[in-house]
Formats: sequence, structure tokens, C-alpha cells
Amino acid sequence: MPVNLSAPDPAALFAVPGVRIGVAEAGVRKANRKDLTVVLIDESSAVGGVFTQNRFCAAPVQVCRDHLAANYGIRAMVINTGNANAGTGEDGLMRTRSTCIALARKLEIAPEQILPFSTGVIMEPLPVDRIEAGLPAALADASENHWARAAEGIMTTDTIPKAFSQKVQIGGATVTITGISKGAGMIRPNMATMLGFMATDAKIDPSLIQPLAKLLADASFNRVTIDGDTSTNDSFVVIATQKAAHATITSLDSADGQALVAAMQNVARLLAQAIVRDGEGATKFITIQVEGGRDAAECKQVAYAIAHSPLVKTAFYASDPNLGRILAAVGYAGIADLDQTGIDLFLDDVHVAVKGGRNPSYREEDGQRVMKQSEITVRVGLGRGTASETVWTCDFSHEYVTINADYRS
Amino acid sequence: MPVNLSAPDPAALFAVPGVRIGVAEAGVRKANRKDLTVVLIDESSAVGGVFTQNRFCAAPVQVCRDHLAANYGIRAMVINTGNANAGTGEDGLMRTRSTCIALARKLEIAPEQILPFSTGVIMEPLPVDRIEAGLPAALADASENHWARAAEGIMTTDTIPKAFSQKVQIGGATVTITGISKGAGMIRPNMATMLGFMATDAKIDPSLIQPLAKLLADASFNRVTIDGDTSTNDSFVVIATQKAAHATITSLDSADGQALVAAMQNVARLLAQAIVRDGEGATKFITIQVEGGRDAAECKQVAYAIAHSPLVKTAFYASDPNLGRILAAVGYAGIADLDQTGIDLFLDDVHVAVKGGRNPSYREEDGQRVMKQSEITVRVGLGRGTASETVWTCDFSHEYVTINADYRS
Repeated sequence: MPVNLSAPDPAALFAVPGVRIGVAEAGVRKANRKDLTVVLIDESSAVGGVFTQNRFCAAPVQVCRDHLAANYGIRAMVINTGNANAGTGEDGLMRTRSTCIALARKLEIAPEQILPFSTGVIMEPLPVDRIEAGLPAALADASENHWARAAEGIMTTDTIPKAFSQKVQIGGATVTITGISKGAGMIRPNMATMLGFMATDAKIDPSLIQPLAKLLADASFNRVTIDGDTSTNDSFVVIATQKAAHATITSLDSADGQALVAAMQNVARLLAQAIVRDGEGATKFITIQVEGGRDAAECKQVAYAIAHSPLVKTAFYASDPNLGRILAAVGYAGIADLDQTGIDLFLDDVHVAVKGGRNPSYREEDGQRVMKQSEITVRVGLGRGTASETVWTCDFSHEYVTINADYRS
Repeated sequence: MPVNLSAPDPAALFAVPGVRIGVAEAGVRKANRKDLTVVLIDESSAVGGVFTQNRFCAAPVQVCRDHLAANYGIRAMVINTGNANAGTGEDGLMRTRSTCIALARKLEIAPEQILPFSTGVIMEPLPVDRIEAGLPAALADASENHWARAAEGIMTTDTIPKAFSQKVQIGGATVTITGISKGAGMIRPNMATMLGFMATDAKIDPSLIQPLAKLLADASFNRVTIDGDTSTNDSFVVIATQKAAHATITSLDSADGQALVAAMQNVARLLAQAIVRDGEGATKFITIQVEGGRDAAECKQVAYAIAHSPLVKTAFYASDPNLGRILAAVGYAGIADLDQTGIDLFLDDVHVAVKGGRNPSYREEDGQRVMKQSEITVRVGLGRGTASETVWTCDFSHEYVTINADYRS
């Protein structure tokens, strides 16, 4: 059961002029499952992406990087679930390229104008034949109004589709932003998330699309973790179709640029948080705020140490205010000169620890009250500077073990 | 159920001349439980120790460091379970010092000649009164033959006591080595483990005891992990009572020194591995060997990335050869210039991946066969150098979640 997250209302997902989506059942791994999605992008759209930093990146990630670098103008994306095409060596690259070639022929464009994405099991050969056979049905399904279908089409162990939409006024014109994401396990994105796609009809100078993608990922997908396992396939793509009626944005720091970034960050953050809310086995959504650090890097380091601690995560699952586990994680986060007598710990509004020791006025029942909530903020003060950072994570339940012990079987 | 580990036979644990042990029920947290252990050490013994690198180290760890630095000659150790006296600030330090003062009065020695150890829940005040009240019974129990009782007396969530003993010939004399350890969760020692104590009657120059302790910890306790959570209380202490009849060892590199180190490393490794075999919820004992690295540090980094991955650990639990998860962990271990096409993966004798892709001759049933074993070796070749490293870990089961969601309740 996702934490305070419901399936998107298709009517609340706005079409983005210049983007059409088609979904099909290709039987990649299982039958009767929407597992193939094609996204068609109008000419002259700007497309940027950021990808996993995992050195074992999947074949489609390598091909995406190549195709973006070729700079022919991206016109389509093809996304399959059921198979990640990772850990598949040279053969995997050939299979991904074959998929691009097959779609390129049908669309009469170059293979380099296609971005391929795969998600699912690792180290199994991608069934290119089944994907190719599914392409006609996916193309026949293409419509501007299929964002909700796409959100469903890219799901794997997700229990719920994830999509958000927003309109924003820019330079006198209404601009639409719509995005989808997926992921529930192997989630500790580094530069991007398992799969996240956002489109807007905003008009922006094409040179800005890549910095925009990075800016959005850093404020959203690069701040969430479920199990600390950075996937081989993380990809986040931003499309700007340039159809809106405002003057072209030539700087992200301009007033129009900032309005667009703020609205897109909002959607990106909702998409990233949705992944955590639907984290494998998640029963709680946890915000970890670390303040008073010397720099953002050390705040993030402490926040992730807490967010990845199996002991902290199981304590949240149990609603047990066994809060010393949080202090222990702060202590082993790797800040060599950290002084424990400077540490404060808050659970929502409850001041648990002061100067590294139990707050004399802390009462177990106050901690217990907060621990029972489905949304909890952990706030740690390091007492050594003014920097701060926030990451989002979930708890660690029996269900996580069940899901991951049974995933392939 | 520990993995291939049974309780020590008290008759197989050799007394170490110069060390006597007494155990009592002090009711620190629960009644009717051996929770207080006193170790009495003859004069002129050399005692060294290494302690947690967690910046949130517990009060007893701080006091141990102070007392070793004072260099009055350690004459006793006092160990309680049920309460870790960590995250307790200045008050915690006072309570630990009170415990040392109480024992020092009874033994007519200085408080600085005592090393205190605590393990159990964090951020609760240590019940010094109950510990003091238990001291007479523990002292009355003191005997050279109580190593098995001590191994039991220091247990917390351990399901089985851990103790090993060995005799070795050095310089024509028989030297005895006996050690005990405890720990089952919050185990990712850095410099030491939750609690490990070893004693020998070997005669060594006192200046060698501290380097010896570090050497032993590095080859044993610093190579194991259960959940990646570095405890606030990790302590490993080595005692050399100097009673054996050989000439004093003045260098660890001498023939006698090497014989002693080898024998002690063997016991230390058994003690450290015993902690993993009894890891919380463990059903399998996993050895992770990383070879072909540029240096030992990067091999260790990759080994720990695999050992800490919840996805890898749940796959072992499920006996599911979902081995792409291991490749993914290798990829995100943080080696920036790692080339995936150099990677080999073996599961025991089964060659799973070659040049970063699935080995064409790999058959799922071979992987399945190894995954079903209770002891498994994962061997990763990085293909970029000659360094290698080994760490030991366990799988991740429902039982781990149960234990840690219920630990305090």
C-alpha cells in the first residue's frame, strides 16, 4: 500500500502539445501486461536527460547517451518493462540498437533520434522480437491524452502509477508540464531515477535543456532513497516541445526561466516522492532534514546514513522510538571530526536529543506519538555550520523482504 | 538459527593463566539473565584495545580510551549487557566512571586500571546501582575456567555464545589463546567489533600489544558486516598475561611473533565469523572475495557494496540466483573509472558473468545449486590489478526485520 498516494486521475493529467504516447502488451516477460510504451515527440523539441552513475549501466543507458550526443534531434522514446537489458555485455547493446532500428524504420527517422529504456530483471537477454512485434499496436495507440496509460505502462514492482501535471503562466502564455515516473526497489538514484519522464510545451533555448534536466534531477530524484541500491538503468528525461506562445527562454535565471524551473521542480519532486511513497514494502514516508552542517555535502552524507540504516528503517516500521539508532547512524556517517556534544535530534516537533544526550524533558510517549504517524520528519542539527539538506525515504518492512525474495521466482 | 555454528564445549575452552572470569545476574534490563561479567587480569599483563570509529561512541568506549591512555596497567574489565550507555552525554560518562570506582574499591586498585564495556539499548540511563549490587556475586564467581560462562554473559540478541581456543608452540613453550565475542545486529565494525575479548599467556613486549590488537582486528572483525550499521560500542581487547615459558617476543615480525600472530588471527577470525554466522536472522554465511583490483581499498569498497546491498542479501535469503543484483552493486560501489567489460563473477565454482555480461555457458540450474547452500563464496574479478580483499556477511531475512522491529518492545 503506497503511503498517502493515490492513482492519478487521467482527467487531471494535461496533454502536452507535441507529445503523443502509445502503450501495448508485448509479452516481454509476462502476458497480458502493458509492458511497451512509445513516446512520439514533435520535431524541434528540445530533449535532455541524465542517467545512472552506476558503472554497470545498462545497454539502453549507454545507447541513450550515444544518441543524445549524436544530436540529430530526438523524435521518439521506446520503453519496455520486464527486462532491464543490464549486465548483458556487447550482445545487450546490439539488442537495444536493433529495437531502435525497428522503430526508426516505422517512423522513417534515424535510429539515433530514438531514446531506448528498459527496466526489469538484470542479466537476461532482451526479447527484441517480441518488442518489435508489439510496436505496431503501440504506435496505433498513440494519443496526446495517454499520460496515465504511460504511467501504467512503465510500472514494474510499483503498486500504483505515478503521474503529475501542472500549468504555469510564463510570459503571458499558459505552459503545461506533465511527468511520469516508476520505481519501487533498487532505488538510490544518482543523477536520475529508475525512470522519470517530464514534458512541457515551454519554449526554451535548446542549450538549456540539459542544465534544466540536471537541475530538476538534483532537486528531486537525487534526494530520494528506498534501499540504497543504485540501479543500472536510472534515466530521467525532460522534453520541451516549444509549442507554447511565450517568448523563448534564453536563461534559467531570468524571471520566466525561474518560473518554469519552480513549476517543473514541483512536478519533479512529486514524481520522486511518489516513488518513495510506493517504495517496496513502504508503510511510512520519512523526510530527513540535516541542518547546521559545514557544507551541503556533509549534510547529505549524514541524511543518507540515516536513510539507509536497516536498523533505523525497521524501527520506523515498528513505530518504535528506538531513536538511539538514529544517533548511531549520525555517528558512523563518516564525518571524521564530528563532535557528538553538538548534536540535536527532533522527531517532528519533539526534541529528543540535546548536546548528544537524551533531552531531559523528552518523554517516550511523545516520541511514540510521532512514530505512529504515516509521515514523519527527522531533523538532525549538527551544530557546526549553516548548511542543510533534505532527503526522502521510507521504512523497511517484512513486505520488502517478501517482494525481493520472491521477485523473480 | 546460526549458520553452521554450535555452542562452544566448555571443556574445549582452555584457561589462560592470569585471567579469571566471574558472571552474575544483575537485572540490568531483565531479571534472571547473566548480564554482568567481570574479568580479572593478573599484574604485569599487557592489554591493548581498538574501539568503534562511530563519532557517537558510547560512554564506556570513551572511558576505555582514557584508561588505556593513563597507562596504570589494566587489572580488570567489567561488562554489562541490557544497556549500551550510548547517546547519554555527560551523565553517561559519570555513570560509567561510577561503575569503575565501585569495582576499583572492591579490588583495591585505581579506577583507571579498569576497562568498562556496555552493550544493549541506546539512549537509556545505565542503572549503576544494579550493576554495583551485582559486583560481589560476579567476583565470588571468578575462575580461570569460566570462559564459556563469559561468552554467555555478554550475549544480547545473540542466539548462541561464541568462544574459541587454541594452543600453539612458541619458543619451545605451549601458549594458550582463548577469545569470546558477541554481536548479531548493528554490525559493521570499524576497527573492532561489538564486543570481542581475547587472552593469551604469551610473553610479549608491552609495546607490541596495541599493534597486535590492530593487526588482529584488521584481519577479522574489520572484515565482517551484518547490516552495515557501525555500532556505538564496538570494542576489541587483547590481553597477554606473560605467563608462558618462552622468551619475550620483541617483534611481531620475528619467527615467534609470526607464530603467535598467525594463531591469534585464526582465533580472531573464528570469533568474527561466528558473529556473522549468528547474524540477526541469518540463514546463510557468505564470503565475498574481490580480486583484480588496483589496491586493497577499492576491493574492500566493492566487497562491502555487495555485502550491504539489501537486494543482494534478500536474493541470498530466497536462494534465487538473481545475480544481476551483484553486478549492480559492483557498479555503484563508487569506483569512478571502473570498466564493466573487465568484470568476472563466480558463485563458488560457477562462472556466472564474463566481461561484464552473462557467461554464454552459464546455466541457471548451476547458479541455483550454489544459492541453495548454507555457505557461499561470491568471487568478483575487477580485471584491473592484482589486489584482493575478503569480507564475510550473511543474508537478509524476514527474521531480521522481526528482530529489529521488536527488539525494544
